[in-house]
Amino acid sequence: MTGAGAEKEKLVSLIRAHDDFLIASHVNPDGDTLGAAIALSLALESMGKKARIFCRDGVPKNYAFLPHSDRVLTSLVPGETERSALILVDCNEPSRADLAGFAFARTAVIDHHETERAFGEIRWVEPQGPATGLMVLGLIRGLGVALTRDIAVNLYAAIAVDTGTFRFGNTTAEVLRAAADLTEAGAEPGVSAENLYRSWSLEQFNLFQRMLGRAELAGPVFFSAISAGDFRETNATQQDTENFVNFPLSVEGVKVSVLIRETNEGLWKASLRSKDDINVSKVAGKFGGGGHKNAAGCTLEGDVDGIRKILLDEVGRIPGVAGKD
Amino acid sequence: MTGAGAEKEKLVSLIRAHDDFLIASHVNPDGDTLGAAIALSLALESMGKKARIFCRDGVPKNYAFLPHSDRVLTSLVPGETERSALILVDCNEPSRADLAGFAFARTAVIDHHETERAFGEIRWVEPQGPATGLMVLGLIRGLGVALTRDIAVNLYAAIAVDTGTFRFGNTTAEVLRAAADLTEAGAEPGVSAENLYRSWSLEQFNLFQRMLGRAELAGPVFFSAISAGDFRETNATQQDTENFVNFPLSVEGVKVSVLIRETNEGLWKASLRSKDDINVSKVAGKFGGGGHKNAAGCTLEGDVDGIRKILLDEVGRIPGVAGKD
Repeated sequence: MTGAGAEKEKLVSLIRAHDDFLIASHVNPDGDTLGAAIALSLALESMGKKARIFCRDGVPKNYAFLPHSDRVLTSLVPGETERSALILVDCNEPSRADLAGFAFARTAVIDHHETERAFGEIRWVEPQGPATGLMVLGLIRGLGVALTRDIAVNLYAAIAVDTGTFRFGNTTAEVLRAAADLTEAGAEPGVSAENLYRSWSLEQFNLFQRMLGRAELAGPVFFSAISAGDFRETNATQQDTENFVNFPLSVEGVKVSVLIRETNEGLWKASLRSKDDINVSKVAGKFGGGGHKNAAGCTLEGDVDGIRKILLDEVGRIPGVAGKD
Repeated sequence: MTGAGAEKEKLVSLIRAHDDFLIASHVNPDGDTLGAAIALSLALESMGKKARIFCRDGVPKNYAFLPHSDRVLTSLVPGETERSALILVDCNEPSRADLAGFAFARTAVIDHHETERAFGEIRWVEPQGPATGLMVLGLIRGLGVALTRDIAVNLYAAIAVDTGTFRFGNTTAEVLRAAADLTEAGAEPGVSAENLYRSWSLEQFNLFQRMLGRAELAGPVFFSAISAGDFRETNATQQDTENFVNFPLSVEGVKVSVLIRETNEGLWKASLRSKDDINVSKVAGKFGGGGHKNAAGCTLEGDVDGIRKILLDEVGRIPGVAGKD
């Protein structure tokens, strides 16, 4: 049995032995952390366990269609967690779920991200795994719990979100077979996609139109900015910009996409995305931010032109962007 | 055995008995007609048959990644077809493949569209089927031919295209299981999606930026225009606009999307798209065009403002758009 397989078996044993669980999703939740957490809580409840779900930031509108998403708690009283076993889902340390400082009876982690710190008595981490939802599907099967429709819809969404609904390179035969099984158990691919992707609000569209209208595309670098005034005038929210920065990477030749948005007068949040081996996390790090190789962010103070120049200068120095490449 | 099942069996027998095939895709080909036709030709060749593929309009750039797509013929000499058995793929009458007037030794149809005319000795038509590629997968299995990588990549693309890569309501468990099998046989979902969706040319992006910049969104109706000057200045082609008109339907509340583009000085091609029960084909019909309920087109002469007014007046009268709905 591999290390991951052994951890999974330990988790099965923990779940069988314990009765009170807190299943926690990471802050700024996506469909994988929420769908996997809700599905797991439903499975544990069907075994007669108490299983609360916690996500500090609650459930974003586009995931409100997930069955039982209304049970997600956004606050906890510290004293109330001491008898619960914590299962972190799609993250691997308590601070990612805003649970630093809480005490738990037991601790476990289910995640497919690289880990930095050794948190958790049980650490089931598969960095090569396409989605935490796929791991939870395996766990539920390991527990011998039947796949109900509500579990299936949640797990389908989890897997769909983390594979770009089967468009990313992590879409394996195993992923598609799991999706087929979940569809047989009651998930509806068309309905999920409709909820996950097809709806832009009018405010969001108007903001996108502005963002694109003033975009610059210079060689491999895309840049645009959204001011506080844009948000006010379109009535859009900061959250509405969530996918804007990814879109330019679909354009041939674009390797880096930079979007800055004014979160408070004179304060700008920069989002950086890149393709392949181009590492934008160092640029973000330079300004006190961070992230991953292909997705990073930081906060800067000043005016658009100044911030634009500072960021584009740094981006221009990244190996693979600079020079004739 | 159902009617469709019996026709499939007849086709298996025809293929076993005959040696020379012409497999034809419809004009304005999409991934389903091309992928299914190429896959079928590869299967027949592996059985030692002669199997030519014909598609009058050739292979669009975004399908050039399909293995063996370079074998697709775009012209035929009438005398050369008389010994071939014709298999129409993803259409059900010869005119749809621009083959009216050609003579064939035998005739067969594999399609999932509604039929209007009874063409073909063998008519295997499944109007509820998600993709012709799924039918061809079943046929290849019925023939006992092994799924090679090249067959798998073609069939995967066929099924992906007609299900919106598993986002449309026709995505069944059977579809996902087929996709899993094809991936196991060598299809690469990430690579397919990259080829099918993720690449905008710079010219196309620049044109999209202009189109969106001058778009109007009035209640449920989206309108925009692309002039001959826009095409010239961005160096984009008419074909580059292919999906522009669909995008606005993703915005909440938008029920009709109208895009006009100048194909020759003063001559405008209007594309109309709609959601649900809103019928835009009548608007197109009024100006000498046509199409389906949710996708239609027509050609008009004049200037932007005049054409805009004429079209929006007509669109405003469609039941479901007019009034407070």
